[in-house]
Amino acid sequence: MGVMRIGHASIRVMDMAASLKHYENVIGMKTVHTDADGNVYLKCWDEWDKYSIILTLADQAGMNHVAYKVEKDADLDSFKERVEAYGIATEMLPEGAMPFVGRILKFNLPSSHEFRLYAKKECVGTDVGSTNPDPWPDDKKGAGAHWLDHTLLMCTLDPPNGVNHVADNCKFMTEVLDFHLGEQAMVGPDANIQAAAFMFRTSTPHDIAFVGGPRPGMHHVSFFLDSWHDILKAGDIMAKNKVRIDVAPTRHGITRGETIYFFDPSGNRNETFAGLGYMAQPDRPVITWTEDTIGRGIFYHTGVLPESFTGVYT
Amino acid sequence: MGVMRIGHASIRVMDMAASLKHYENVIGMKTVHTDADGNVYLKCWDEWDKYSIILTLADQAGMNHVAYKVEKDADLDSFKERVEAYGIATEMLPEGAMPFVGRILKFNLPSSHEFRLYAKKECVGTDVGSTNPDPWPDDKKGAGAHWLDHTLLMCTLDPPNGVNHVADNCKFMTEVLDFHLGEQAMVGPDANIQAAAFMFRTSTPHDIAFVGGPRPGMHHVSFFLDSWHDILKAGDIMAKNKVRIDVAPTRHGITRGETIYFFDPSGNRNETFAGLGYMAQPDRPVITWTEDTIGRGIFYHTGVLPESFTGVYT
Amino acid sequence: MGVMRIGHASIRVMDMAASLKHYENVIGMKTVHTDADGNVYLKCWDEWDKYSIILTLADQAGMNHVAYKVEKDADLDSFKERVEAYGIATEMLPEGAMPFVGRILKFNLPSSHEFRLYAKKECVGTDVGSTNPDPWPDDKKGAGAHWLDHTLLMCTLDPPNGVNHVADNCKFMTEVLDFHLGEQAMVGPDANIQAAAFMFRTSTPHDIAFVGGPRPGMHHVSFFLDSWHDILKAGDIMAKNKVRIDVAPTRHGITRGETIYFFDPSGNRNETFAGLGYMAQPDRPVITWTEDTIGRGIFYHTGVLPESFTGVYT
Amino acid sequence: MGVMRIGHASIRVMDMAASLKHYENVIGMKTVHTDADGNVYLKCWDEWDKYSIILTLADQAGMNHVAYKVEKDADLDSFKERVEAYGIATEMLPEGAMPFVGRILKFNLPSSHEFRLYAKKECVGTDVGSTNPDPWPDDKKGAGAHWLDHTLLMCTLDPPNGVNHVADNCKFMTEVLDFHLGEQAMVGPDANIQAAAFMFRTSTPHDIAFVGGPRPGMHHVSFFLDSWHDILKAGDIMAKNKVRIDVAPTRHGITRGETIYFFDPSGNRNETFAGLGYMAQPDRPVITWTEDTIGRGIFYHTGVLPESFTGVYT
Repeated sequence: MGVMRIGHASIRVMDMAASLKHYENVIGMKTVHTDADGNVYLKCWDEWDKYSIILTLADQAGMNHVAYKVEKDADLDSFKERVEAYGIATEMLPEGAMPFVGRILKFNLPSSHEFRLYAKKECVGTDVGSTNPDPWPDDKKGAGAHWLDHTLLMCTLDPPNGVNHVADNCKFMTEVLDFHLGEQAMVGPDANIQAAAFMFRTSTPHDIAFVGGPRPGMHHVSFFLDSWHDILKAGDIMAKNKVRIDVAPTRHGITRGETIYFFDPSGNRNETFAGLGYMAQPDRPVITWTEDTIGRGIFYHTGVLPESFTGVYT
Repeated sequence: MGVMRIGHASIRVMDMAASLKHYENVIGMKTVHTDADGNVYLKCWDEWDKYSIILTLADQAGMNHVAYKVEKDADLDSFKERVEAYGIATEMLPEGAMPFVGRILKFNLPSSHEFRLYAKKECVGTDVGSTNPDPWPDDKKGAGAHWLDHTLLMCTLDPPNGVNHVADNCKFMTEVLDFHLGEQAMVGPDANIQAAAFMFRTSTPHDIAFVGGPRPGMHHVSFFLDSWHDILKAGDIMAKNKVRIDVAPTRHGITRGETIYFFDPSGNRNETFAGLGYMAQPDRPVITWTEDTIGRGIFYHTGVLPESFTGVYT
Repeated sequence: MGVMRIGHASIRVMDMAASLKHYENVIGMKTVHTDADGNVYLKCWDEWDKYSIILTLADQAGMNHVAYKVEKDADLDSFKERVEAYGIATEMLPEGAMPFVGRILKFNLPSSHEFRLYAKKECVGTDVGSTNPDPWPDDKKGAGAHWLDHTLLMCTLDPPNGVNHVADNCKFMTEVLDFHLGEQAMVGPDANIQAAAFMFRTSTPHDIAFVGGPRPGMHHVSFFLDSWHDILKAGDIMAKNKVRIDVAPTRHGITRGETIYFFDPSGNRNETFAGLGYMAQPDRPVITWTEDTIGRGIFYHTGVLPESFTGVYT
Repeated sequence: MGVMRIGHASIRVMDMAASLKHYENVIGMKTVHTDADGNVYLKCWDEWDKYSIILTLADQAGMNHVAYKVEKDADLDSFKERVEAYGIATEMLPEGAMPFVGRILKFNLPSSHEFRLYAKKECVGTDVGSTNPDPWPDDKKGAGAHWLDHTLLMCTLDPPNGVNHVADNCKFMTEVLDFHLGEQAMVGPDANIQAAAFMFRTSTPHDIAFVGGPRPGMHHVSFFLDSWHDILKAGDIMAKNKVRIDVAPTRHGITRGETIYFFDPSGNRNETFAGLGYMAQPDRPVITWTEDTIGRGIFYHTGVLPESFTGVYT
């Protein structure tokens, strides 16, 4: 099978106490581990592996790396070969390099983002267990996010200089990591510049996304909610916690998902994302958004893409 | 990748006009083809392949066969070998044996149900298209089902005589077709009789399910809806169309899905099923329902399993 | 203005501890007072008066009385005159006869149910307060019912003997208490027997309802929820608390409301009811349900009225 | 009873064809009448009186008048006396002055807005009828608005010059028309300037609202939807119709309502508003929003009040 899904994201924050309050009380995660360096590991209630977010103290917000889980340990060796054959250097971190995690294959995407693959992480079970489980736990908190769903990475897009790291990443993810392209935005006078790519390995519309911008960075990490109603409740929770909201509840054209964008206390953009949207499949026709309609692709209702949305990221 | 998802179900009906009215006006499908024998082919708006339901006129309701789509044509050859190696006879139907479909690998599950695999079906696109698509089509009808989601097959379970076709199917699907077991019900004094198995290939909680009963048959075919709200609207649509409802809106414990069970005019059970439920993954711990809690597994709210629910099927 | 809305219901229970657990953990009320006789008074979070449910220990379940609040203390005197002029005896209980309540006008409806009117009850405010209130309180529990919404009283209906306490109550409520008839069911060969009446004083579809049966009793007390989604969550809460559910989530034809019927531990039927339904107004045409369609009036989806639904009450 | 509810609003539009397309295809109204002057009358499916919106062609957008319905024809005489006793001139228009409407009492609010009361308008029934009605009609269109719900009028607020037409209107509506104040915003260094007032006659949180600004005008007319889910669908409908959206789906702190603000083709602001919010009652404690929290009162999630929201109106 190869890559199964997103495994975790390592996020830089500037105030650990405020950040914990945010990821625990707003997103609804639980702290499961703190390492010797003070990095804090958190887990959503519906995840069965040990953690999906690592918060590290830093002078500047952003993402250290994002990691995806592969099905078998041997997949790491095969991906190592394929990544290197593609011309990208790799490093195999030994078991224990990250707590509760087996071997890690580490490399940089063409866009420069650090990317990791691993096959083993301690399985602790979801908060409802595996025997006669309730559909949700009694102690669900905050927005009650089910799981870390995907990340959107900003990639350098500089057509005049022939630089398109969106397209470069898309090619790499397709050819080497067997991701499928679900949706893309094509811009430029000839509509031949891939300015955004939404890619999947699960049957959900995106497990990772790349959007073009002036420099590489993290646009957002996204957490899954069940329904549009839970989006409303999440907005209420954000209001109660005085969270800075970027874009109020609306629907995406791309993925059809229901969404709120907001910021953690360090300025890292988060998303609560709801709904299956559609059944992503290798043979589903790739959706293309044209330049005049990208606003509606991002925010379907207004069709307006606020400048801050593509300009502000960490 | 192998098997991707459910492709179509061929259903026996006793009154074609009434059946078409049902699948079109209630489920919300469109008729896309009628063949020389009078079989009618229908498609949901969010499916991109030509059809997912075939209605054939018969004296008795039930399912002729269910078919799953594999990723590559060559997968059919490899599955042929694996199925035969397992000791099950196969037949390879040539392209065109079914309209708009390529080669078909045909065989019977251990439970005796006819099962088909195919790699190619004419791709006609979803009703919203692939360029700047709206999230739903203007002419959505009835319950507006997105797609045929899964089927539940009743399998002979006769422990005193050592017959358990649920377990037999589960083993076959796992070992030969690479399905994953998501949830199961274990019954009997030693809780070692697998009386139900819910299996997946996509990331949704089930793409096929097997439940034990006195004889083989079709329990239901299920159609996907977005949300609990759409379940309410589907119930309203059923009321307006005087559809016979089996079980009013409720939640499943198993899969967490939101559901209505109802009957087509020939007595074939249908389901509208909403919600992703959870992210099904090969490494997600298998959920087990114990005998005392199966009622709540099926119908979470009441915890009561009406006798008719397991006794009546086609 | 006269009568404003339902004020409280006094309910007989046979196990106080189990009942408190039910009304607190399932309905989501808070205990606000226990009197010297051990009667317990509870309040919903969105009510501003001191209490809306009184639980009294008894050998048998049922309702002691239901009370409605009038706008002005002087209204009590005017209603006393009107009720007595109608030929019904009244009693004016002095302030303090019930804790935190002013004068009470007490009498029996034509159906024999004890009915009370009062103008004053200690106002303690909603749980979100009156200054910059959040839309819901942080400590919302269980189903999080907003308020006691209405009651449905079973009234003797015995047409062969010329007894129709539904019609008698309807006439009394209209002529004396200025209630408006919103919906009714008309049965019998000439469709001239009023077998059910849904009446309002607020702009919601019903503040009290009367349904015909073999003897007087309480069919249910109903608690308001916001939405169909909250109905799903309420069903989940009931499942977690092993509440006996009478009718799983569905929609009423009458009132259009979304509903679950269930029982408190003593067998008193409760309802969670969601949605405004429609704007009830004095000039809105009265809705009539005919005998052949009453099933759909009660349970719109299935159209089936379980015998237990009209046969079992306290 | 006196005033029952909002009856209709007469709106100025600059392009009748575009406006009709908007109110029919987006709001979901039906045209029921066109008079000799070309004014067009429209009705929502869940209203039983003949019309609730009148579109008149003009050079400039805005509201001609808003009208509320009283219970009895004689109420008009009594209100005429009370309004004149308050020092406001009135005019009694004869039956037929407006099509399908009886006598009309016409006067200006202290804020200068033209206000009308009437007791009779031809009753044509809702689109689902009064006998065994479905909960919604088969031909529901667009957002499927149930009814014209309320209007918000901008009133001159100029504290340095001692002008506060919000407070003036609030006093008049309370003392003369028996409206109740549900919520208010108090601003200024002493928090004694009533900058907004939300008033009701039905049991819904507001039937009319007044907000202070530089000049009198119409801020919006609002249409009722059932639920947060219908708000999502309304947003989708607006996207499909390229409607200019002012504020994407969110929740109000004031009234707790779920909302989208958007513009008709002439720039008149519309709202789709969902949910009962809470039970408005004469004895419910008045809610007060303080100046620092008004943003959250208007848009609860972000807490941000866009300048355009109070600055732009017709």
